[in-house]
Amino acid sequence: MTKDNLTAVLHGIEDMRLEQRPIPDISADEVLVAMDSVGICGSDVHYLTKGRIGHFVVTKPMVIGHESAGVVAKVGSKVKNLVVGDRIAIEPGVPCYKCDHCKQGSYNLCPDMAFCATPPYDGNLTRYYKHVADFCFKLPDHVTMEEGALLEPLSVGVHACNRAGVGLGSKVLILGAGPIGLVTLLVAQSMGATKILITDLVQQRLDIAKELGATHTLLMKPGDTAEDVADRVHQVMGVEPDQSIDCCGAESTTRLAIFATRSGGVVVIVGMGPSEMKLPLFNALAREVDIRGVFRYCNDYSAALALVASGRVNIKRLVTHHFDITETAKAFETARFGTGGAIKVMIHVQPRNSNNPVKF
Amino acid sequence: MTKDNLTAVLHGIEDMRLEQRPIPDISADEVLVAMDSVGICGSDVHYLTKGRIGHFVVTKPMVIGHESAGVVAKVGSKVKNLVVGDRIAIEPGVPCYKCDHCKQGSYNLCPDMAFCATPPYDGNLTRYYKHVADFCFKLPDHVTMEEGALLEPLSVGVHACNRAGVGLGSKVLILGAGPIGLVTLLVAQSMGATKILITDLVQQRLDIAKELGATHTLLMKPGDTAEDVADRVHQVMGVEPDQSIDCCGAESTTRLAIFATRSGGVVVIVGMGPSEMKLPLFNALAREVDIRGVFRYCNDYSAALALVASGRVNIKRLVTHHFDITETAKAFETARFGTGGAIKVMIHVQPRNSNNPVKF
Amino acid sequence: MTKDNLTAVLHGIEDMRLEQRPIPDISADEVLVAMDSVGICGSDVHYLTKGRIGHFVVTKPMVIGHESAGVVAKVGSKVKNLVVGDRIAIEPGVPCYKCDHCKQGSYNLCPDMAFCATPPYDGNLTRYYKHVADFCFKLPDHVTMEEGALLEPLSVGVHACNRAGVGLGSKVLILGAGPIGLVTLLVAQSMGATKILITDLVQQRLDIAKELGATHTLLMKPGDTAEDVADRVHQVMGVEPDQSIDCCGAESTTRLAIFATRSGGVVVIVGMGPSEMKLPLFNALAREVDIRGVFRYCNDYSAALALVASGRVNIKRLVTHHFDITETAKAFETARFGTGGAIKVMIHVQPRNSNNPVKF
Amino acid sequence: MTKDNLTAVLHGIEDMRLEQRPIPDISADEVLVAMDSVGICGSDVHYLTKGRIGHFVVTKPMVIGHESAGVVAKVGSKVKNLVVGDRIAIEPGVPCYKCDHCKQGSYNLCPDMAFCATPPYDGNLTRYYKHVADFCFKLPDHVTMEEGALLEPLSVGVHACNRAGVGLGSKVLILGAGPIGLVTLLVAQSMGATKILITDLVQQRLDIAKELGATHTLLMKPGDTAEDVADRVHQVMGVEPDQSIDCCGAESTTRLAIFATRSGGVVVIVGMGPSEMKLPLFNALAREVDIRGVFRYCNDYSAALALVASGRVNIKRLVTHHFDITETAKAFETARFGTGGAIKVMIHVQPRNSNNPVKF
Repeated sequence: MTKDNLTAVLHGIEDMRLEQRPIPDISADEVLVAMDSVGICGSDVHYLTKGRIGHFVVTKPMVIGHESAGVVAKVGSKVKNLVVGDRIAIEPGVPCYKCDHCKQGSYNLCPDMAFCATPPYDGNLTRYYKHVADFCFKLPDHVTMEEGALLEPLSVGVHACNRAGVGLGSKVLILGAGPIGLVTLLVAQSMGATKILITDLVQQRLDIAKELGATHTLLMKPGDTAEDVADRVHQVMGVEPDQSIDCCGAESTTRLAIFATRSGGVVVIVGMGPSEMKLPLFNALAREVDIRGVFRYCNDYSAALALVASGRVNIKRLVTHHFDITETAKAFETARFGTGGAIKVMIHVQPRNSNNPVKF
Repeated sequence: MTKDNLTAVLHGIEDMRLEQRPIPDISADEVLVAMDSVGICGSDVHYLTKGRIGHFVVTKPMVIGHESAGVVAKVGSKVKNLVVGDRIAIEPGVPCYKCDHCKQGSYNLCPDMAFCATPPYDGNLTRYYKHVADFCFKLPDHVTMEEGALLEPLSVGVHACNRAGVGLGSKVLILGAGPIGLVTLLVAQSMGATKILITDLVQQRLDIAKELGATHTLLMKPGDTAEDVADRVHQVMGVEPDQSIDCCGAESTTRLAIFATRSGGVVVIVGMGPSEMKLPLFNALAREVDIRGVFRYCNDYSAALALVASGRVNIKRLVTHHFDITETAKAFETARFGTGGAIKVMIHVQPRNSNNPVKF
Repeated sequence: MTKDNLTAVLHGIEDMRLEQRPIPDISADEVLVAMDSVGICGSDVHYLTKGRIGHFVVTKPMVIGHESAGVVAKVGSKVKNLVVGDRIAIEPGVPCYKCDHCKQGSYNLCPDMAFCATPPYDGNLTRYYKHVADFCFKLPDHVTMEEGALLEPLSVGVHACNRAGVGLGSKVLILGAGPIGLVTLLVAQSMGATKILITDLVQQRLDIAKELGATHTLLMKPGDTAEDVADRVHQVMGVEPDQSIDCCGAESTTRLAIFATRSGGVVVIVGMGPSEMKLPLFNALAREVDIRGVFRYCNDYSAALALVASGRVNIKRLVTHHFDITETAKAFETARFGTGGAIKVMIHVQPRNSNNPVKF
Repeated sequence: MTKDNLTAVLHGIEDMRLEQRPIPDISADEVLVAMDSVGICGSDVHYLTKGRIGHFVVTKPMVIGHESAGVVAKVGSKVKNLVVGDRIAIEPGVPCYKCDHCKQGSYNLCPDMAFCATPPYDGNLTRYYKHVADFCFKLPDHVTMEEGALLEPLSVGVHACNRAGVGLGSKVLILGAGPIGLVTLLVAQSMGATKILITDLVQQRLDIAKELGATHTLLMKPGDTAEDVADRVHQVMGVEPDQSIDCCGAESTTRLAIFATRSGGVVVIVGMGPSEMKLPLFNALAREVDIRGVFRYCNDYSAALALVASGRVNIKRLVTHHFDITETAKAFETARFGTGGAIKVMIHVQPRNSNNPVKF
């Protein structure tokens, strides 16, 4: 095996470096993965530009990247679900398995979760990365590595729609038509939502949402009040939404979500905004509109993969830009500034399509 | 208004008659409906040939028919949701509204439910029929009366899939490819099921299921043991189904559903079979496979209508035969014997398409 | 029947009058109730002193009172569940029965709810009052009229604990030891909570909470920060609470509830505070702590009655003061200022114990 | 440390032997436990007399015993939740932690579960036994080792009542007043059930149930038909039970549970009966009475311990007989034949009360 393990390491704010790292040894229940595709997430950009998200602070060099797929290069002695050569998507968090949260089926809340590219844990924008085998998902031949990498944001959409209780005939309001808003749209459709209104400040994003199946779009303007936009949402949809899913997490969108949702409905907030917000809580409480957060995902990768593999959703449309790992700086710049209408920027650790039986 | 109120009345076993009935008066919260389309359900045929279903016994003449749609001809003084001329689908059961079941959101279990064509309550295969306005659902222009009538069986499919907990990425086994099996298939797809295997004894029915989106089909033979077929189901699907929905209700299919379902999964039984069955209950209990019945539907018509109106499902495909109300005898014969590959037989109380802005 | 129908009518802010009103006629599904006991709720006091709660505004004279019990004096022709002489508790809201909320089992969210002493609907601090029979609950002989009246706040506690998902072995934090805090405490115990910490600003109230079964109490001081008190809650309980139920609804208590609750837990807010609040929402979202309101109750009266009738809870302890209807002004003053350590003030429309086979 | 590791080993049908076994070595996440108290379960007796339960067959010598508590004698290097000397209850099953069932919070359904005294896994009626630390629950000083051992059957009751959805004001029917019926009774009370009828064929058992808080008892006779007993249940309770929990698992009791339960209610079957049963399934389906099994327990030990530690239930009453491990044969004989009104027989591996700060 090659000794090349070029790796994208964040050393501090605005200080990302490509450097060689040792190829990791694996233990009995792990696999070594020859990474193929790694998408750039908003959180990756945030760590680059701010050095922190909430109480997660980059205090030492950290490998970036967590939306990823690769090919199994080595398997541990106890691994039964994978063999060398398997093409896999990587669910990037490994919990302790043993605390109450883990045992109760909420491993995303495990306090000892080791999550790729969340300090102090390294990510996987690198040539060789090791991972526990039970959080690797084998891809069928017709699913590309890029789609495998996108199972990560798609799983956020799955978790958000499950938390919201989207179901058959649901009327759904989605706030924000960025990558998370768009995957949430795709998932809500797949779960039977029959009306989906999506909002954004940028018309171009709404156009893509429309193309992907939004039944209604609404262009917001910075000065709009939440109450006014809520009224417009009701007019455009013809009903009050059963679920509102806020993929921005700004105070203004959360306020809108509360005002817009029908009594007895659910507001789910995916986007993480400021630590403090001024909210019309009375309005939500007196109408029993529940407010629920989304922290990553939990037991959602299988469904996300099934959605893609069955052809029920087309997430390829989200990938607007491709870069080689040696172009990581440029890739992050593109993602950061949305250059060229960037939605999802994909970094290729190996030459494009080299592991795709069906080309992307 | 005409005084013609030709009505299909079941007088006893094998004794259906077309006769004139008085046009009903309506009360303040009711509407008078000029009926348009009425589908024939298996239960209608059962009453004709057996005179009873379980403890529901036809002891006096009863108007038949309950899968129906029509046009509002008159509205009661307190009715606010409808006006004369509205094209509507009729949810055919009216509960007491006041018992614990009704107040807890399970009106389908109301012991005082008055349900069309379930003794002693009259159905609505008639020219003029009255109904409470709150169980009438206005159809958009592009939804045909026939589709409106089919919301009834579709709602059974909705209720079945909700009871089963079908969700994103579900692997579903459906037993029986008759009308209820097919609507259940359509609904399961719409809720995000990514693998659906459907079984039947008749290949032709499986072909239609395939056409409607079943990912797998399995032709059963009368002599098959449940354990053997369960094994074949697992082989064909590549997994154990999360939910098995038995749309036959025979002992053999219920046994199969139990053996086939994964541990922790759900068996839902829609079809009503014999009062007593020999079952491998230990197998279900020790694997915590839950067994749930489906009794009609409850709060499901809106979702069924939204599915059809949004174009998410095509239920038109189910209608194989059309008859005028004056041909009711022939219509029932067709439904009863499945003549000409009959799936769903539709009876037209008014000339076909006379109330359809968009032709069927 | 007497023509005396002395009634407590709120004419405006600080303007409550006792006056004669006509004895109401009943319709077929109603009963006439000779009122016996009516408790004073915080909302009654609020209407007296502010003339409004949120968007509910007293714009014309309104009979006050809604925590009530009485004796059936007349029954409508269609009433089957009650006879003259039955001692009953009155669930004070009557929904439309027909909207989606009603049909889905959430009649408390019905937009057409007619609720006693919520403008524009009259309450029942009066000698004769009519009510639909299906929202009257017959009391067994050993349950007093006062306890019947207290089923109203007790039902709020039931609804709050159900919304919170209190269960076996739950660790519960209750904020506020007023009447609602105390009934919530009683209910949480009855549902299997094994640790219950209750907070208040008044030690005397905490003493009563302790007497009623709180396992821990915590005296708060006005200047405390939510983060600090959350730490103390964790120290005193030895764990993070699974559910926090805020019976105050102030910004400070809601903030505390969020900080204190374990990841994946639930914050329920019963008390209705200011329309706008500054909240540490990020903290709740990133730990998937759900926030849920409580609007009255729904299908909870039966359980509340069963709790009292079975002797599982002792709500008599809450009643600290008794007044005759002719002393209504004094009764409200006592409730308003908490005179003499007032918790629950009871107004008797008939002489005390005249309808109690077992004395209070 | 002593080398004495006297152990009760089942060599085959009716062939239990006391023999020395090596004291086990522990790994990093395990503890070595000096066993104190081990209760005899019906399944232990069943393996002794039949050599099998369902498809679990004793094919090689197996240590018996799984209702157990002991004292930590050694801790692995990674164990953080326990220290030497800790008094603990042992949850006797260790799942794989990594399969879908484990990750989804249903580890009791894990196909790779290693469960004490379920072939091929050894139990813990022995002096020294090793166990993973995360399935050991530290007992407070005032909880006895015997109560610690009884957390095992109590957890079955917790799981059964959770599966049944017992809640505030529930009316519960429990079939069978053996140890499982009695713990289910205790748990149902603690969750807020206000009417509990328990049945048995033996009056003496009903007397104990009454003593433990059953509100009603019903003595059944072998010849009773399920329909007739269901009628008597309704008469005695005055209502139809919301939940029926069958702790026998015989065809007759399961039939009774179905007929007795209210429409929309739940039948939970804890006792494991014959592999095939003749059931009135139509009756359950048409009334949407759900049928659910109980397989051991899952995430229930904490609640069971909290119930005991808080003094909410008194499970000491269940222990009728005590034996030393050297009297194992006699202990099993007592449990097997119910000698002397035996309910729960406890085997002491160490002298009684030697590890109980508060005597049993």
